[in-house]
Amino acid sequence: MDKTVYIALVCPGGPITRDLADRTADIAAARFGAAVRLAFHPQCFLEAGHFAGSDAERSAAFLETANDPHYDAVWFARGGYGACHLDEALFGKLNDAARAKTYLGYSDAGFLLARLYREGIGRPVHGPMPSDLARENGEAALARALGYLVRGDADALEPTVKSGKKVAAFNITVLAHIVGTDWAPDLSGCVVMLEDISEYLYRIDRAMFSIMADPGVRRAAGLKLGRLADVPENDRPFGANEEEIVQYWCRRARVPYLGRADIGHDAQNKIVPFGALTSA
Amino acid sequence: MDKTVYIALVCPGGPITRDLADRTADIAAARFGAAVRLAFHPQCFLEAGHFAGSDAERSAAFLETANDPHYDAVWFARGGYGACHLDEALFGKLNDAARAKTYLGYSDAGFLLARLYREGIGRPVHGPMPSDLARENGEAALARALGYLVRGDADALEPTVKSGKKVAAFNITVLAHIVGTDWAPDLSGCVVMLEDISEYLYRIDRAMFSIMADPGVRRAAGLKLGRLADVPENDRPFGANEEEIVQYWCRRARVPYLGRADIGHDAQNKIVPFGALTSA
Repeated sequence: MDKTVYIALVCPGGPITRDLADRTADIAAARFGAAVRLAFHPQCFLEAGHFAGSDAERSAAFLETANDPHYDAVWFARGGYGACHLDEALFGKLNDAARAKTYLGYSDAGFLLARLYREGIGRPVHGPMPSDLARENGEAALARALGYLVRGDADALEPTVKSGKKVAAFNITVLAHIVGTDWAPDLSGCVVMLEDISEYLYRIDRAMFSIMADPGVRRAAGLKLGRLADVPENDRPFGANEEEIVQYWCRRARVPYLGRADIGHDAQNKIVPFGALTSA
Repeated sequence: MDKTVYIALVCPGGPITRDLADRTADIAAARFGAAVRLAFHPQCFLEAGHFAGSDAERSAAFLETANDPHYDAVWFARGGYGACHLDEALFGKLNDAARAKTYLGYSDAGFLLARLYREGIGRPVHGPMPSDLARENGEAALARALGYLVRGDADALEPTVKSGKKVAAFNITVLAHIVGTDWAPDLSGCVVMLEDISEYLYRIDRAMFSIMADPGVRRAAGLKLGRLADVPENDRPFGANEEEIVQYWCRRARVPYLGRADIGHDAQNKIVPFGALTSA
């Protein structure tokens, strides 16, 4: 029998409920039995205004689980907002156990995926989180994430990943806020996949202006556009659709546009392990 | 009698209506008579999706009016969105007439104020635009802008300006998209005033994360917070008010927080000429 995979869950942004944690644990048990053990850090359930506890509490929970050699992976239980508040000093305190781990999440958790990739710590992975249970067919998203974490399921991967090229994936709005900061990873040579939700097209366009100014993005192998969910209606038609917007900014920056990616704020969101695929 | 002040109006983002132009001209005539002449560039009324004409048309209108020695000032007639689409090559084509001009606007026009300040071209000024006529007491805002352009009214100025310190002012969301790009001005030594409208507090907070990463902002004399208008209700209380958010990020970046500024997306929006005040 394969060894058991131990996964710690923390919330660097917003909190989750005990009910969501229980349902996530039930899905893991029903589908993977003793092959996986989930440990929800108590910090997941803290509430401090918008956040799952204070900056100090969220920073400590992430540092503690990342550095604990008992766990194979840290799974961000929810995005929301708040990962960029974590204490920057913690990244200097991550140990060898932290460097051997997988870190899975997306949306606001992209701030952490970015910083970890920048620092060369562990394997940041863009993919579903327990909070996706709130979506239609959310259980399929969680099963995909668990299948990747527990068995390394190849069919959980976004197809581009299997090309062996360096890849990364981000929420467009989150990446627009990361570029130009000390959290920005070097995306040169990467196929960068982008997705977003609930943003007006003019905001997507404006975010792309910022993203394309990043020196690494300007040397990217190319951009792929995932899904934009729930785009609100503009007061006047924007005049370009989502793909034309990304193509426009790629053209201005002379970065190849490589077509669509199978990622998004939805249950179909495929898995993108940052960097080039290596056999485990 | 003083000389007549000639003002050209263009729309680097969204378009305006002929009616708005007529009402603006009427206000200028009623209050300042022959002391001012407004010239609305035909580009103001073009429509191309979200924008007041194509990128090429907006770029050409701006370049043409900026370079025309007949005009003392270029007044951006409206923000909206789109200034960051202008052809970057135009900044290298601005002539001595462009360097002698005042450029007035705010909101999305902040992209141009930023770029002009970065390039050391003319006097970028943050203040009311004709589109403010849509606001309550909008006429007072336009009278203030015209009083500044035509007579250099000192009481139109945001009080900090009169300290003689270097100053600049921006919409928070716009500045968050400018930092890290080739449009970012050097704000070191400046008192940087910030305002915004219709943004959730978590978005203001996230924008401040990006802004405070800018090397110039980190060496700013300090930040002042103008008004945040129409902040939408969060699904959960954010846990900090607008001033606490700016104070938080100032503290993290060790930049002085200097209190409130008298600017905002409203009719009370005072005038902030970038740089240090000099007698005309």
